[in-house]
Amino acid sequence: MAAPHRTQQERSSRTRARLLEATVECLVERGYAGTTVAEICQRAGLSRGAQQHHFTTKAELMTRALEHLFTRLADEIVATRLPTGPDRLEKGIDLLWEAYSGTLSTAAVELWVAARTDEELRGHLLPVDRALGHATLEFYRRLVGDGDAAELETVLLLTVNLFRGLALDAMIGGDDGRRAALLAEWKALVLRRRAG
Amino acid sequence: MAAPHRTQQERSSRTRARLLEATVECLVERGYAGTTVAEICQRAGLSRGAQQHHFTTKAELMTRALEHLFTRLADEIVATRLPTGPDRLEKGIDLLWEAYSGTLSTAAVELWVAARTDEELRGHLLPVDRALGHATLEFYRRLVGDGDAAELETVLLLTVNLFRGLALDAMIGGDDGRRAALLAEWKALVLRRRAG
Repeated sequence: MAAPHRTQQERSSRTRARLLEATVECLVERGYAGTTVAEICQRAGLSRGAQQHHFTTKAELMTRALEHLFTRLADEIVATRLPTGPDRLEKGIDLLWEAYSGTLSTAAVELWVAARTDEELRGHLLPVDRALGHATLEFYRRLVGDGDAAELETVLLLTVNLFRGLALDAMIGGDDGRRAALLAEWKALVLRRRAG
Repeated sequence: MAAPHRTQQERSSRTRARLLEATVECLVERGYAGTTVAEICQRAGLSRGAQQHHFTTKAELMTRALEHLFTRLADEIVATRLPTGPDRLEKGIDLLWEAYSGTLSTAAVELWVAARTDEELRGHLLPVDRALGHATLEFYRRLVGDGDAAELETVLLLTVNLFRGLALDAMIGGDDGRRAALLAEWKALVLRRRAG
């Protein structure tokens, strides 16, 4: 049987995805400063010319890679692991913790820190970072459904910022068991707050 | 009147402090990757040879600069602004927030993130980071005095990790007002937890 014919658009979209995955890999392995567009292209099996057809600069490529990773994780959660039932907020916190304990968090922290002293990167990153923040909040609004929207936003923002801090702790080799204990304490605090 | 005679040791200690201050300045302005030992020496008015008499590598210089900054802030707080009275825990949280909103936090986050992909820096930074963590905990134990030590450690660790996350938010240009509101929420949660 002949392989299905791929359109130009399908090929372009696959190439783009391969480039973005290679970008995340490099960023996580080498950090922002240690990553070059040349190495990303080599990993993705693309020439520099073919890459520039998709993204013009390292800063744009990196920002789109973060967005791509976020969207892939969010799609996967919505498609297969959306929590239900009365403890869905608690399960939702676990999902957020999972997202903040892995590649997404490492990539995001690398970019945020690099963006502090890199104006071009900051210009690309800020609107994407805000959009991802809003998407996360919207996800939790739909998940929890009932209750005070401002209250949910406060809990979510405290949780996100705590998890960012814990992600930093993990990045520098802090103790796993201590982080797990802090997560349990935090869930107890949040649930008590909602109950009280 | 003649200037007081400075011993060799005094001169060396002043040179060391000047070098460490210049290191923090460069780190905050340019980030870890963008900082060179040559520029630090230039700002401190030292030759490379004179610098190498004090510190052998960029990683060592950076780690000692973080330690120096922490010690200076801690000494200043203990000497002039140690909170007293029944609301000393709340005031203590404000002091920690202040420490995590400024230069110390920016310098620490730069080094933590760089250390993830730089083994030499990680080797220098990890023991210093642990020692500073213990010193902070010890400070709060003495400040609060009474109560359950494990409980205080949990509250402090949650607070430190939340503040690390909020420091990242500030680094990428997040909203000041929102961070202030989250700080107020957090203090209310901590104080209710201790009361309840």
